[in-house]
Amino acid sequence: MNPIIDDLHSRKSVRAYEDKPIPPEIRKEILLAAMAAPTAGNQQMYTILDITDQNIKDRLAITCDNQPFIAKAKMVLIFCADLQKWYDAFEDCGCQPRLPGKGDMLIATDDALIAAQNAVTAAWSLGIGSCYIGDIMEQVEEHRKLLNLPRYVFPAAMLVFGYPTQQQKDRPKPLRCDMDYMVHENTYHQMNSAELKKLFKNQHGDKPYEDWFQAFCARKYNSDFAREMSRSVEIYLDDFPFKA
Amino acid sequence: MNPIIDDLHSRKSVRAYEDKPIPPEIRKEILLAAMAAPTAGNQQMYTILDITDQNIKDRLAITCDNQPFIAKAKMVLIFCADLQKWYDAFEDCGCQPRLPGKGDMLIATDDALIAAQNAVTAAWSLGIGSCYIGDIMEQVEEHRKLLNLPRYVFPAAMLVFGYPTQQQKDRPKPLRCDMDYMVHENTYHQMNSAELKKLFKNQHGDKPYEDWFQAFCARKYNSDFAREMSRSVEIYLDDFPFKA
Repeated sequence: MNPIIDDLHSRKSVRAYEDKPIPPEIRKEILLAAMAAPTAGNQQMYTILDITDQNIKDRLAITCDNQPFIAKAKMVLIFCADLQKWYDAFEDCGCQPRLPGKGDMLIATDDALIAAQNAVTAAWSLGIGSCYIGDIMEQVEEHRKLLNLPRYVFPAAMLVFGYPTQQQKDRPKPLRCDMDYMVHENTYHQMNSAELKKLFKNQHGDKPYEDWFQAFCARKYNSDFAREMSRSVEIYLDDFPFKA
Repeated sequence: MNPIIDDLHSRKSVRAYEDKPIPPEIRKEILLAAMAAPTAGNQQMYTILDITDQNIKDRLAITCDNQPFIAKAKMVLIFCADLQKWYDAFEDCGCQPRLPGKGDMLIATDDALIAAQNAVTAAWSLGIGSCYIGDIMEQVEEHRKLLNLPRYVFPAAMLVFGYPTQQQKDRPKPLRCDMDYMVHENTYHQMNSAELKKLFKNQHGDKPYEDWFQAFCARKYNSDFAREMSRSVEIYLDDFPFKA
């Protein structure tokens, strides 16, 4: 291991922050590190929304599955997959671009997340914690209005940042699954019951496997917010209509 | 800046490799760093395929838009968004899970890319270069067969790794866009012609803006592989049928 890999291992999600602002030069360092990330064909098919308006933060804390800590974050970034700027430039230059398609939306989502993870790593190296908020993909109608998103822009991930409280520093990082079940050699290996049990052993912990999964399925997978995410994402996807 | 942020800035794509294997313990370090990445609700909704079979690498070098350097990479990882293992565990535990939806596919894609970018950062810190191959999203029929992908598994990104040749070390990193146009405060700002020209100034460089975009649109955006990506991704998406 080296200090960089150490940092990747020590990083954990932080959801409670000291009441201490992130100085402008530090904010800039985080943003520049994000923008230094790999990007398909150097296209940077994403745009970062830097949410500084407390009213918008307050609203996002409600629309993103009612998580009040979002409103208290000292930096809130929304990483949007952005085909709009490319499409507009093609039109502006008299090209004859096809309409954007779902493949474009996905490759731009890749770009957005790659950049986001650089922001996470840069922030952590500066003592700043972060938390991904996937719920930004929900509530398409409201988020489009709130953030002025045009058709070919999809909010792929939100990140909230702040200096961790002592309690957050002390909080143990949840254990990950064993590598043997996360990494498959050459081809995908669909797992049987015994293997799934081993794969998920750190999830269910002391609880019986079946009980844990039944509770998790009801609380998370079959929840209203998970259903809402698919409803909302489908509307974004439908607006990338190119058919091959 | 600190050494971690320095590394995020110095990292660039590497497409030519020394003929020097990556030792097993280093491969493991890269994989463990990937798995330490943030993941929604600690669900790790991804699976990494570690492609060690030269025949599969050779085939991927063809199916992924004919890029021979893929076959020469010393480590090839495919980061798959994976709802299959969760769905299978829910069924195994007698839950009544809804079918996976497009929101599930997207949040799992987020998970996959966040992990992938940790692998990139870890590798670079160990002197190992990498390159993302988005084309793994193409050719759904062939890739499903080649990699044995079940229905709810989507290959969101491929990464190829190796020790950079001297020429690759010396190659300048392409300039990114200016932050002023990549980061918008609070709401998305759809750019006018003058702003788009400034946003993309490092792309078109010395070439006139219109000429560069016309050539790029024809060569990349309207290309067969870009059309193929949307065709293929649409098939993967259609297999996540949940309707809210």
